[in-house]
Amino acid sequence: MPAVDVVRRESFVVPTPGRGLVNVTRAIADVVARAGASEGLATVFVHHTSASLIIQENASPEVPLDLETFLGGLVPDGDRRYRHVDEGSDDMSAHVRSALTATSVGIPVAAGRLDLGTWQGVWLWEHRTAPHERRVSVVVVGAR
Amino acid sequence: MPAVDVVRRESFVVPTPGRGLVNVTRAIADVVARAGASEGLATVFVHHTSASLIIQENASPEVPLDLETFLGGLVPDGDRRYRHVDEGSDDMSAHVRSALTATSVGIPVAAGRLDLGTWQGVWLWEHRTAPHERRVSVVVVGAR
Amino acid sequence: MPAVDVVRRESFVVPTPGRGLVNVTRAIADVVARAGASEGLATVFVHHTSASLIIQENASPEVPLDLETFLGGLVPDGDRRYRHVDEGSDDMSAHVRSALTATSVGIPVAAGRLDLGTWQGVWLWEHRTAPHERRVSVVVVGAR
Repeated sequence: MPAVDVVRRESFVVPTPGRGLVNVTRAIADVVARAGASEGLATVFVHHTSASLIIQENASPEVPLDLETFLGGLVPDGDRRYRHVDEGSDDMSAHVRSALTATSVGIPVAAGRLDLGTWQGVWLWEHRTAPHERRVSVVVVGAR
Repeated sequence: MPAVDVVRRESFVVPTPGRGLVNVTRAIADVVARAGASEGLATVFVHHTSASLIIQENASPEVPLDLETFLGGLVPDGDRRYRHVDEGSDDMSAHVRSALTATSVGIPVAAGRLDLGTWQGVWLWEHRTAPHERRVSVVVVGAR
Repeated sequence: MPAVDVVRRESFVVPTPGRGLVNVTRAIADVVARAGASEGLATVFVHHTSASLIIQENASPEVPLDLETFLGGLVPDGDRRYRHVDEGSDDMSAHVRSALTATSVGIPVAAGRLDLGTWQGVWLWEHRTAPHERRVSVVVVGAR
């Protein structure tokens, strides 16, 4: 049984161009490489309530566009039922979009690497229409 | 490299007044404080299938109300397509609402504290219309 | 304070009969039993972008059918707005369905066992209409 001797937490900032998905797989893989764990768990967390995380197809550039099309249709901006309207018509919808996706994801670490499936990438989903800077943290726990 | 020498699991019960969001950030932060880890991961879990967890805005009291308004519109009670109707018209919709949100969330621990963003709180979302008692667990893994 | 001396990662393959939910609780509980941790965290991960995980009712066989009915209605196959259509009318909808549910879930381990609520089971949700083989990993971190 290996000793559990690695805990490493790092944060980085992702600039977003406004609403849509930004691939952050590489930055997360780099934290995992620096952590030096051969086996364990990497947990990714976004420190915001109007941006979220998903693990989705990393190959076809159409998939993130279609995901955005679907979610934009499901959660309209400027819904007249909302009370929280002071920060713009895309603000409450951004909170809803975030609630329907993920704030954290846990990913296995195997042989020192992020053990994603062949077609999986990790995406930050910006839900506001304006560009933002979003803070993401990765916590790696495991054994060397 | 610090030793990984903290694992602490605690459960607590959240009384809910029926459908809607209850802020549980404080109770989770208290578990993290007692765990004594300076760096690591806190994973929160709800032991139910008709209540869930989300990390959302902790400032405006309008946001949890609008989240409830949206989800209530998306997932109507008493949907005639449902087979599972014995436990009331809000039961199957509660399962659906739970499936669209989260049963667990992982949050970084930094400098001994829950490392939430400025506007983030952790909420238990009660999906049944009647009051319930909901069990929540927190598992902290990290280094002193 | 117990030492954190367990990290165990295992993968298994789940054959699916096409769209719908497959109960994978037993296979996950078996990994936890083999890990030998008395206290800790089990994180489950699915290595695909058109299948996902949820923790839901394990008792009534109607609940997984109704969950499928709801999600199928919310996310229609062959939506004309989609660009990503080369892999069939159920492919982009499968990505959307996956994005709305979970790719990973974290579950407490207590007294050496998966600490699920009375009515909770872990389900793999196949979102494609054809049968598939889906890889699932479990990472257990904790103390003996």
